[in-house]
This record gives sequence, C-alpha cells and structure tokens, in this order.
Amino acid sequence: MIKLGVVGANGKMGQEVVKMAIAAQNIELVCAVDKLNIGQNIYNDVYIEGDLNAALKVHDVDVVVDFTQPSTVFENIKIYMENKVKSVIGTTGLSDEQIMQIKEMSKSSNTGCIIAPNFSIGAILMMKFAQEASKYFSNAEIIEFHNKKKKDAPSGTSIKTAQLMMESNNNFKLGNCEETETIKGSRGGNYNQDGKGNIQIHSVRMPGFVASQQVIFGSDGQILKIHHDTINRECYMPGVKLAVEHIFENNDFVYGLENIL
Amino acid sequence: MIKLGVVGANGKMGQEVVKMAIAAQNIELVCAVDKLNIGQNIYNDVYIEGDLNAALKVHDVDVVVDFTQPSTVFENIKIYMENKVKSVIGTTGLSDEQIMQIKEMSKSSNTGCIIAPNFSIGAILMMKFAQEASKYFSNAEIIEFHNKKKKDAPSGTSIKTAQLMMESNNNFKLGNCEETETIKGSRGGNYNQDGKGNIQIHSVRMPGFVASQQVIFGSDGQILKIHHDTINRECYMPGVKLAVEHIFENNDFVYGLENIL
Amino acid sequence: MIKLGVVGANGKMGQEVVKMAIAAQNIELVCAVDKLNIGQNIYNDVYIEGDLNAALKVHDVDVVVDFTQPSTVFENIKIYMENKVKSVIGTTGLSDEQIMQIKEMSKSSNTGCIIAPNFSIGAILMMKFAQEASKYFSNAEIIEFHNKKKKDAPSGTSIKTAQLMMESNNNFKLGNCEETETIKGSRGGNYNQDGKGNIQIHSVRMPGFVASQQVIFGSDGQILKIHHDTINRECYMPGVKLAVEHIFENNDFVYGLENIL
Amino acid sequence: MIKLGVVGANGKMGQEVVKMAIAAQNIELVCAVDKLNIGQNIYNDVYIEGDLNAALKVHDVDVVVDFTQPSTVFENIKIYMENKVKSVIGTTGLSDEQIMQIKEMSKSSNTGCIIAPNFSIGAILMMKFAQEASKYFSNAEIIEFHNKKKKDAPSGTSIKTAQLMMESNNNFKLGNCEETETIKGSRGGNYNQDGKGNIQIHSVRMPGFVASQQVIFGSDGQILKIHHDTINRECYMPGVKLAVEHIFENNDFVYGLENIL
Repeated sequence: MIKLGVVGANGKMGQEVVKMAIAAQNIELVCAVDKLNIGQNIYNDVYIEGDLNAALKVHDVDVVVDFTQPSTVFENIKIYMENKVKSVIGTTGLSDEQIMQIKEMSKSSNTGCIIAPNFSIGAILMMKFAQEASKYFSNAEIIEFHNKKKKDAPSGTSIKTAQLMMESNNNFKLGNCEETETIKGSRGGNYNQDGKGNIQIHSVRMPGFVASQQVIFGSDGQILKIHHDTINRECYMPGVKLAVEHIFENNDFVYGLENIL
Repeated sequence: MIKLGVVGANGKMGQEVVKMAIAAQNIELVCAVDKLNIGQNIYNDVYIEGDLNAALKVHDVDVVVDFTQPSTVFENIKIYMENKVKSVIGTTGLSDEQIMQIKEMSKSSNTGCIIAPNFSIGAILMMKFAQEASKYFSNAEIIEFHNKKKKDAPSGTSIKTAQLMMESNNNFKLGNCEETETIKGSRGGNYNQDGKGNIQIHSVRMPGFVASQQVIFGSDGQILKIHHDTINRECYMPGVKLAVEHIFENNDFVYGLENIL
Repeated sequence: MIKLGVVGANGKMGQEVVKMAIAAQNIELVCAVDKLNIGQNIYNDVYIEGDLNAALKVHDVDVVVDFTQPSTVFENIKIYMENKVKSVIGTTGLSDEQIMQIKEMSKSSNTGCIIAPNFSIGAILMMKFAQEASKYFSNAEIIEFHNKKKKDAPSGTSIKTAQLMMESNNNFKLGNCEETETIKGSRGGNYNQDGKGNIQIHSVRMPGFVASQQVIFGSDGQILKIHHDTINRECYMPGVKLAVEHIFENNDFVYGLENIL
Repeated sequence: MIKLGVVGANGKMGQEVVKMAIAAQNIELVCAVDKLNIGQNIYNDVYIEGDLNAALKVHDVDVVVDFTQPSTVFENIKIYMENKVKSVIGTTGLSDEQIMQIKEMSKSSNTGCIIAPNFSIGAILMMKFAQEASKYFSNAEIIEFHNKKKKDAPSGTSIKTAQLMMESNNNFKLGNCEETETIKGSRGGNYNQDGKGNIQIHSVRMPGFVASQQVIFGSDGQILKIHHDTINRECYMPGVKLAVEHIFENNDFVYGLENIL
C-alpha cells in the first residue's frame, strides 16, 4: 500500500489525483495540502492542511504528488527532499537550471523524484511510436486538432513529436515534387532544424476538440496513422498513478514519463 | 437496354467505361471509337473504329461516353448533336463559352448532353453534405490528402468544396481567438472571398494516398467529419453509369453530376 | 428577443440550457422552474420556482424548454398548452399515444410544441446524410463507439440510422461473397427487416468514448465515411436553441429535430 | 551493390520485385527465373530463365527473392542452400516442420535466409505498437476492413495482432459492464485463449477497401488509435528491400520481418 500525499489538492488536477487515489486499490490517501479551504474534510480522516512541512512531519507519507504553481513548486521540492519524501511533480514552469539542481538534491538526499511535463500515456506512446516509425518511412506529416481557444499554432506536443521523429530521420518529404501553393499556407508549417527534417505540421482549431493529434506516415501503397484524442483531464491519471508506483518501488530521479514506459 | 458508344475507348478512362458497359445488365456496348488501335476487337463484335461520324451513322447508338482530349472534344460534341446521339462528356478543358454553346446546341438539336468534370459520386456527396452541414456549424476546416506527385496545393476539389460551403455560411472561424503561428503556415491556407468565408484548408502530400479529403465541422462538445477516399479510377464508373442512365431517360442538358444526384 | 422559461432548471441538461440562454443574444431567460432548490437565484432576477402553473402566469414567457422526468412531462405539457406557452420538450419517455394526444392539444389550443428525442444537430445530419448516400452505394456498414458503461449493443442511434438507410436502399451487402466467421460475431450484428436491409452494425465499448458513430459506404475504388463524435452534453445546446427559435417563429407541432433542419 | 536474382519473376509479386530492383540504387538485377515466358528480356541483359539451379551457377547472385508457389518453394530453398545463395522467401505455404528444416540447412550450409509471411512494414509496425500499447491500456478492440471478396472473418492479421497484444496483457475489457446484444454479433468476435484476453474483433467487408486495420485503445478521457491502410501490392516492396539488405549484410536465419525492424 502506497501512502500518498496530494499537494495542491484543491486544484483541478489535484482533485483528479484525490479521486484517483481513493479509487486505487494499492494507494492510501493520507495527506492533502493546499492554500485554500484549509480544514476541509476531503475523504475519511483526511483534512486539507496549509503547512506543507508540518504535514509531512505529522503524516507517514511515501510519495507526494505536486500539482501546484510555478512560483512555489521549487520550494516545495526542497521540502520533499528534506523530509525524504519521494515526489511526483506535475507542476510546470521549472527552469533547466532548477531541474539540474533537483536532480542533484535527489541524489544527495537519496530521495526519488519524477518530474513530468506530460502525464498522458497515450500522447507519450504516440510520440514514441512516431519516432520508431520514422526509421522506416521517408514521408510523414503531423495534423493536430485543438480547441478554438488555443492561441498558438502548432502545439507544443506536435513540435516535440517532430523533434523526436527527426532523431530517427532527418530527411522527410523525400521524392515530393516541387510544390506550388495557390493559397499560401495550405501545405502547413515546415518544421526543420538548419534546413533538415522537413516535417509539415497542420493545425486545426475549432470547438469540439480538446487536444488531438495524428501522425501520418506514407510509402507507396500504404499509410500508417497514429492518432491520439484527449477529451478531459481524467486522461492524465493513469500516468500519475504509474509515476507514483514507479517512484515508490524505485528511488531514482526521472525527467519525463517516457523514461519509465 | 441502352446502346452505348465509347469514344476514346483506348484511353485509361475509356477502358474502364468499356469494362463497366460489359458488366452492366442494362447497357449494350455497340460501338468503340479511338485514334489508336483501329480495327482491334475489344468485345464480341465490337471493333475500334477511327471515324467518329461514320461510326455513329453505321451503329444504332443511344448514348456515347466521351473521354478524349481537350483539343478534340468540342468537335466531337458537334458530331454527337448532328447525329442526334445523346452524350456523356468526361473530357475536361472546355471553356465557359464552349459550354454555353453546347447548351444551346443541345436545345436547338433536342439532343441531351451531360458534361461532368467529376464522376466520383462519393466526392460529390461529400461536397453536397459539406454544403448542407455548413448551415448549422460556425466552424469548419478542410484537410485534403494527395500523392507526393501532385504539384499544386490546395486541390481543386477542396476549393470547390469551400466555395459550396460559403454559399451556406460566409463566416466560419466564428469565435476563434486571435491566433499566432510560431511556424508559418501551420494554420493552413485561408480560403475566403473578399475577406468572407474563412475556411482553413490543409494539404497533405505523400505516397500511399491517391486522393482523399476530409471536411471537419465542430461545435461545443461535438465534431462531424465527412471523409472521402479514392484509391483508383474504378471509382468513377458508378457516376458514368448514372449519367448514361439519366441522359437515356431524359433529354436535357446538364452541367455537373451533382445536378442529377 | 425570445423570453425563455427553463423547466427542470436544476438538472444536468437544464443547467446547460440556462447557460445557453444567458449566452445567447436573442434569448432572455425570464423564468426557471424545478422541484429542488426553490428560491435559488440562478441569474440576475431569475429565481427557481416550484409551481409551474403559477410561474407561467406570473412571467411573460414565449417558449419553455422542458428537461424533466418521464413521470411529469405529460402533465407539464398540458400546463404549457393551457397557458398557451410554446414548448420545446427534451424529456424522454412519452408514449406514442401521448405524443398523438399532444399533437391534437397543440392544434386545438393553437400552441406550438417541438418534441425531440435527440438535439444533437451533428448526429441528425449524420443520419440524414447516411440516408441520402444510401441511394448511391450498395455496400454500407455502421460502427458505433460508446463508453464501457453502456449496457446494450448496438446503440439506439445506430439502429435509427440503419432504419433510415433502409428507406433509401433495402439491399446492402450486394455482391459480398459467402462469408465464414472463424470467430463468431466478428462480422457484427446484421440489421434487417424481414430479411431485407443487411446493414452490419459493429459496437465498440471502452473508456475514452462518450458517443461516436461512423457510417461507411464503399464502392469499387472509393470509400465515403460520415463520422460523428460527442464528447459532452454541451453538444445538444445548438439543437435546443434552433428548436426554441423555430417554435418562436412558427406555431406548429414538430416531432424530431430532423424535421426543422 | 547487391546482385539480385528474382525467382517467380513473372508473377504479380515478382514483377513488383523486378521494378523495385531496377529503381534501387544499391541493387543490381542480375538474374530472373520463372516457368513462363522463358527467354523474355525483362531488363537490360536480363532474360527469364527456366532452370533455377543452372541460373544460380551461371550468374554471380548475392541474394534471391522467391515469390513462387507453395508446391515448389521448399525445393527452391534447397537449391539456394546448395549454391550458397542467400534468400528472401515471400512464398507462403511452408509447414512448421519445413521451416525448422530450413533453419537447420541455413546453419549447416552457413547460408542466410529470411522467411516472411508479411512484408508490409506498416502492418508489422502496427502490430508491434499494438503489443507495446497493450501494457498500458486495459481496454482495446480491433476493427479490420477488407474487400467484399474476402471470405473469412476476422483476418489473419487481426488474429496475429490480438495474439501479440495478449502477450502484453491477458485481461482486456477490464471494467466493462455486463453487456446485452439486442442484435447478435454487434459486439464483434471475442478473441481469447482459454478464456483469457478478451479482445473484440470487428470485421468490415465492402468494395473500396483492399486491407485496412485499426487497433483502438481507450482509458478514461483518452483514445489511442493505430491505423494501417494498404491500397496495392507496391506496399510490400520496402519490406522486401529491407530483407534483401539485411540478409546481404548478415548471414543469419530469420523468420518474420518483425525480427529485423
């Protein structure tokens, strides 16, 4: 049985983690921390506490899951290390330098820590499969679909995917004839690094989508598609659970969920 | 039983028409005309003839199907009218003026004629459905997929589809937030007329596709997709057959297969 | 401006209707009725009331939307008619006989009423397009995808779709060779009426889907797919709004949203 | 430069191999064998020969590709081994016992040989990815789409895929509620081994498809799909080429293209 603490238990993600912990047969929710609603009973004998350090001293916690704020997460992590409590960090906003520091603290304190910018197992598998398939196909493009409220295009996930694909193949669009766009932009955005890569990315924006992505590979006579749909934030919980289980059993430092899949 | 003549019987499309005619239970192949392979026996008692006018006078032909060349089709049509033989014209390249002239000839000679740039029933239904759905959705985009040998983007079919959609709705992308492209072109090509319309078109080019198109409509909580795949030119034959049957039973002038669906 | 009353304003659908009414520029929310939370202020000057009849007498209501219970909806409708308030009925469970009675009441009281079992415009268009395409294809199958909590297969929508398709074509599976199932059921469920129809329906059940359906049409060399995804109940609101607008402008009796699309 | 012999050079697959060899920059076509059209010049100085053994003695052949008949392939392979010519075997119909014998011959004669029932790289990757994803999802189903001329359902590839998936997870359909089929077969065919596995397979049959398959994985809030389309037999050539290159560089015995991907 893994004794779990949830830090940021009142947030949208924190609430999902609480639900996941309650439903899981191998996890026991023992502690919840947040700045808001202190004292609220969230499950059985678990009440929201405001003082993280105190909470970790009072309760016997194996692993904490942290979905808090960019401004507080680094200080939180120091507290986890000091109390030798393993942690799963979903909060974004850590700088590369901070991540290096955390890695060192994790080693010196011998306290496991997983930092993951993305807990969607399906999205990570999509990227992994795309990278693998890139070895065998010389033509590939990415289409990503997001809600009309998303401001930037293409999505971060599509760029990450293209980067991974380029590690396997730095010359897509092989054999495409010279192309003319009668409507500018119709062939999509060209992802490349120093002129290499050539992965076209197409971004669709409309209501009805939360976050979907399709990677398409083609060769003569065949098409291979890897498609991932996210429709709500429940989708992150299997990844959070996997991370909790991993860090409970191992005591290492991990950056990126892909490294434990 | 419809007595059919095939003009351009040796061409790629002509050969498919011959096969279709032989397989159809309500069509009898009575005449085949081409510039090449004159005298070749293509089926039972049917031999390829080189003189179109002579062939139409010798054989009792109800309807001809013409898949020839832009340079000859207009003269061919005059011959059909003079011989009062109904015709289905798949050859492209007629000018708007020529089409008007053919319409008049058809009326004055009382000889039915169908001119169709596209015999793919599936593609025409896709366009029709897209036009209809456009009345009820304020967000729609088009993705089209063609072989890497296709030079221009977007495809003619996608532009035709966007035009038809705009007849139902001239203000797509309603409520989309202001967008930023970190990779230029990633949001696709914007189809509009005088600033109206706003249908994003995305063109994918790779081997493995012949001609596919997807029209996507979104509103809060739902997505409607209409998707059409073409994998070879057999797909045009049901449309040719429908046109032959229509013009046999009716004696009118029709431009575009969509008008008889 | 349409003055709207929401009956069942506390239910899951009722709450969505309230949100829709508040957001719509041509609708004014003037009245909310429910059995629960009476007196609660739900928007501006609108408080939940418990007595439907009284509420309709006090407020100047053009149209009510009713998402209540099978046990109360028929009595509610009588009250709408008596007060000459037009109604949009989303509540299910009315018997055929009751629907006939409502139609008569609507005429005799000259009070418009729309009863619709399905307000998803996308799903209704999918069915309409499937019925239309069935005229031109002799092979079609349906795949529907629902959550693992759905007990029955196939879905009601897939059966309704198959019925509509059969009105256009009562002999699908034309030319399929004699088939052998090495794993029983792999070819899906055969929908037919007195041996006619032959539409194979395939039901997928897993988490991650809310309600999706794909109708696939095939002929030599081409595939036409119509695909609809529902991811949450917001998707019904454009249909509810359309019904409200229709009944406000017309004063008829309508059964089924498809009749006003 | 790999000196290639094509055995069964007149067959449908053999002709594709010849085309592939001519187009490849690292392959030289040096020898073609078939029972038909002996003496026909198929490319430059290469003529079809009828005596396999004699042909291998006359020409300096590094690798042969064999797409012949079940009745002759085993004898052919003996000849390859005797002449110490490496071989890529695409011909089907070898028994398990014969394959074991070939493996031994390959070792004792120190002559590399690849036997592959499927050269479609895309299909093999689909299976590999499905097996990998099965570790992380507890719900998965397979839909396969083939032409209406295919007699048996489900397809061999879908069963092979399900077998591989079961190696990763022997308990799919986890948490599905008790299901009722109002139309028998609608939930598809249940693939299991001794009651374990529970992968539903759905088979669609209609014109317009050659061979497609989709493996769908679902968990709360997300769907991962792996989809493969084959539209003609050109799709096998990258796999044949890969096998030729592998066996030229290595001298081992391989059964199944998946082992060299």
